[in-house]
Amino acid sequence: MNINKYVDISTLDKEAKRDYIDRHSAFIFCDKTATAGKKLKVKIKIGDEYMHPDDFDHYIAWVQLWDGEKNLAQANFTAGSLGSASNNLEVDFYIVPTKNMKLTAMAFCTKHGLWQSDEVVVEVK
Amino acid sequence: MNINKYVDISTLDKEAKRDYIDRHSAFIFCDKTATAGKKLKVKIKIGDEYMHPDDFDHYIAWVQLWDGEKNLAQANFTAGSLGSASNNLEVDFYIVPTKNMKLTAMAFCTKHGLWQSDEVVVEVK
Amino acid sequence: MNINKYVDISTLDKEAKRDYIDRHSAFIFCDKTATAGKKLKVKIKIGDEYMHPDDFDHYIAWVQLWDGEKNLAQANFTAGSLGSASNNLEVDFYIVPTKNMKLTAMAFCTKHGLWQSDEVVVEVK
Amino acid sequence: MNINKYVDISTLDKEAKRDYIDRHSAFIFCDKTATAGKKLKVKIKIGDEYMHPDDFDHYIAWVQLWDGEKNLAQANFTAGSLGSASNNLEVDFYIVPTKNMKLTAMAFCTKHGLWQSDEVVVEVK
Repeated sequence: MNINKYVDISTLDKEAKRDYIDRHSAFIFCDKTATAGKKLKVKIKIGDEYMHPDDFDHYIAWVQLWDGEKNLAQANFTAGSLGSASNNLEVDFYIVPTKNMKLTAMAFCTKHGLWQSDEVVVEVK
Repeated sequence: MNINKYVDISTLDKEAKRDYIDRHSAFIFCDKTATAGKKLKVKIKIGDEYMHPDDFDHYIAWVQLWDGEKNLAQANFTAGSLGSASNNLEVDFYIVPTKNMKLTAMAFCTKHGLWQSDEVVVEVK
Repeated sequence: MNINKYVDISTLDKEAKRDYIDRHSAFIFCDKTATAGKKLKVKIKIGDEYMHPDDFDHYIAWVQLWDGEKNLAQANFTAGSLGSASNNLEVDFYIVPTKNMKLTAMAFCTKHGLWQSDEVVVEVK
Repeated sequence: MNINKYVDISTLDKEAKRDYIDRHSAFIFCDKTATAGKKLKVKIKIGDEYMHPDDFDHYIAWVQLWDGEKNLAQANFTAGSLGSASNNLEVDFYIVPTKNMKLTAMAFCTKHGLWQSDEVVVEVK
């Protein structure tokens, strides 16, 4: 299976490619340090400068949160259920960490396949 | 199927029952008014004063967000994946509303079945 | 939440209503007796005489298998992913039963909400 | 993310490794030719000669069916919900194909991560 990886769009020449890459890329936002036993908010967001459609035949159907090779959570969406407007899809999960984590997000677009975020390392004390 | 409904625990006499009801109840937190086309954050939280286990054989396996009879989103969790600590499970979804909504959350506990939140009406202008 | 229940369509007068009810109804097919520790096939099928669309804006997004108040499994589908042809959606799960079961199927149509099958009792020896 | 791939265990020397690889491997069983518009049964099965546990802390949490880069369906399981007996997990999906397909299965074990099957090409006439 082809897993598309995040690319820094400032390195890309073509506007169409920047748009395509950016609006499919999954990003993780969370604190890089956390306390064992204390809840940590982890935001997954799809796209940064560009927005993805939420059309019936073209939408982000699900996103997953991983810690290394362990799947922590998955959010599924129904076509057009979030409003049918182009947007930067977001979902926030909350983890109670016990040890250091290597978080990755995966997102599935019904037209353009699977996209993997950069890894975010969280140090847990 | 039996769907357990939220009960105001201040109306309950027995501590054990207050604990049982509270830690399984799903709550929705969001603004009660929203603007059409603008992203709205909708938090689902399980339990208020009491926390639910995240044990391998007893955990909240999934939560769903509904608008009336339409399922908007579902988040699935793997046993113990959120840290194996008792906690008030949370997940935030983001909707771009187009019209008034009647939001309900459903949560599934692997030992104690299905729990439905109170409905939250959102007026969309 | 409104949960639509199965209705025997031979009791219904109007063709439009028979069609509507039948093509949304979830049915469970399995042996009514099973052996503890031996795999049991459980088929969920949506509709009997009438077929449901698999359109992008109108499809069966998921089906669930329940034993009493315990959710055993859920299958999720992407809009149009099964071929975009009207059909009687099917999925087969396989259970290794340990004790008597009361199986129920739930199906979610993106336009017409939640549908619950009749309960099927399986005696496990 | 590390995606484990199927290995023909007859090429492996060590029994422990044959067991480990075999019981996690996902296999697709279906006819290699299909008729457009006619329902096709596609079985996903985990393991061949060896069985995987269905323990609360070690189970197959989900399997996915893909056609190339398109995710067709996903089945999720609750820990121990299928009987808590070691077994070769199976699920059957039914597709109404429209054109040639390249089917792949992905399975997620809560202890040993993601496993991808060999690709099965289906010619659709």
